[in-house]
Amino acid sequence: MCQLFGLNSAKPVAPHFSLRGFFRRGGATDEHADGWGLAYYGDGGSHLQVRETAAAQCVDARAVLERPFKSRNVIAHVRKATIGAVAVRNNHPFVRRLWGRTWVFAHNGDLKQFRPAVHPAFVPRGETDSEQAFCHLLGSLQERFGDTPPPDDLLFAHIHAASAFIARSGAFNFLLSDGRLMFAHCSTLLHWTLRTAAAGRVELLDDAFSINFQEHNGPEERMAVIATKPLTRGEPWHPMMGGELKLFADGVELESVRIEHACGPIARAGGGERQTA
Amino acid sequence: MCQLFGLNSAKPVAPHFSLRGFFRRGGATDEHADGWGLAYYGDGGSHLQVRETAAAQCVDARAVLERPFKSRNVIAHVRKATIGAVAVRNNHPFVRRLWGRTWVFAHNGDLKQFRPAVHPAFVPRGETDSEQAFCHLLGSLQERFGDTPPPDDLLFAHIHAASAFIARSGAFNFLLSDGRLMFAHCSTLLHWTLRTAAAGRVELLDDAFSINFQEHNGPEERMAVIATKPLTRGEPWHPMMGGELKLFADGVELESVRIEHACGPIARAGGGERQTA
Repeated sequence: MCQLFGLNSAKPVAPHFSLRGFFRRGGATDEHADGWGLAYYGDGGSHLQVRETAAAQCVDARAVLERPFKSRNVIAHVRKATIGAVAVRNNHPFVRRLWGRTWVFAHNGDLKQFRPAVHPAFVPRGETDSEQAFCHLLGSLQERFGDTPPPDDLLFAHIHAASAFIARSGAFNFLLSDGRLMFAHCSTLLHWTLRTAAAGRVELLDDAFSINFQEHNGPEERMAVIATKPLTRGEPWHPMMGGELKLFADGVELESVRIEHACGPIARAGGGERQTA
Repeated sequence: MCQLFGLNSAKPVAPHFSLRGFFRRGGATDEHADGWGLAYYGDGGSHLQVRETAAAQCVDARAVLERPFKSRNVIAHVRKATIGAVAVRNNHPFVRRLWGRTWVFAHNGDLKQFRPAVHPAFVPRGETDSEQAFCHLLGSLQERFGDTPPPDDLLFAHIHAASAFIARSGAFNFLLSDGRLMFAHCSTLLHWTLRTAAAGRVELLDDAFSINFQEHNGPEERMAVIATKPLTRGEPWHPMMGGELKLFADGVELESVRIEHACGPIARAGGGERQTA
């Protein structure tokens, strides 16, 4: 299993505070020591870095935290290998191109039974179930919509159905971004918070470190932060529900869907003489 | 345009009271005089009857109201032709086989821009946009799930996404049943009620006729009744929302979904020196 981190912001922000806590879960405060990965969009392109070593001990992960950069969409991942060797080709996030956009995907969960047909435009390079699911998802988008990206609400409905399909094969918590949109799907475990400066001082749960957002961010700035488990104390983290898909854009929740199972006594069918409608 | 009627019940019921009012909309209380159709499941099979004549004046429609039958799933339709000639091949409900089940479909709305590729197993016989949409829907189900019917929640998610896709081309209010499940999708206009004996006396809106359900139905009986516009006075009719899909089974609402657009000020992206996450 693995852990996920995602950020979607109205303005470019420096994600170093959150990543500092998150990377600690890669071998220090938690057991996800089989590699890490970071993808972010910014400076006119997308950046991807993956390593096979534990994030908490990796000099390159430390270098990330010391290197200044800002982004509006970030996805990070710390890995505990279950399916696929410990190797860069099996490390999340995965990246593919569709509709002239760069799509980034990271997954937490096991999809042991998922063996989809391979779409010729989206062929997995590694052995993970996660990359197979990502390729299948993008392939189904291209099959449905061809070369024309659909409006956001339609894209959202399709990704919801495809996610429900894939999630039949196991746990399918994932983050997916095209550089503008951030999709978050929960099978079993995923949390989110809308971060504003109003939170004031916020403390990392994985490191003895805190920050006062009122000193760093203006009152109009807002961003969505998503993580397998809450990263901080001092701001409200919301658990997502199984089968729930959320879409964030410009740092706010844009759309949300979950199939609601209505409650009510289900009468049994049977005979009867008079029943009328 | 057209009007729709649907019934999903725990026990087999005689739908004559509701149909009596509904058929009046075919040329008496409303203008849907270009034909009618009725499909119901019962007696080990499905029954379909379509006519090109106005339901309110048709001797065969009157014969339906005098013929005793009961069913757990009924779909009826009165037509005002907009796309396709007035002919039996263009009359709803449409029927096709998939996964060993008989699927029945009726539509209200225009899909003028919808020209999907034809699936070889589901070829339209008439010229209506409605039959094209039905064939596309079943074709996409078979492409996604092959020869194995999926669990209800997954079927529901797929039908939601496919409906959202089709509804981009116009108004797509429809009823769809496989003999057990009743799907109701609303683009612009559709109402539903859960009918129990507790409603007591209920009066048709389209005919000077009322009935006391307490005299006809037991307290444990319940059914969902769906119609373009409410059919009766004396029971609570609920309007569905645009983009909403509901699933009824055994006379109760089983699942419901609509993409929720979250509200909130969307901050604009811009420069800035300090932004931190």
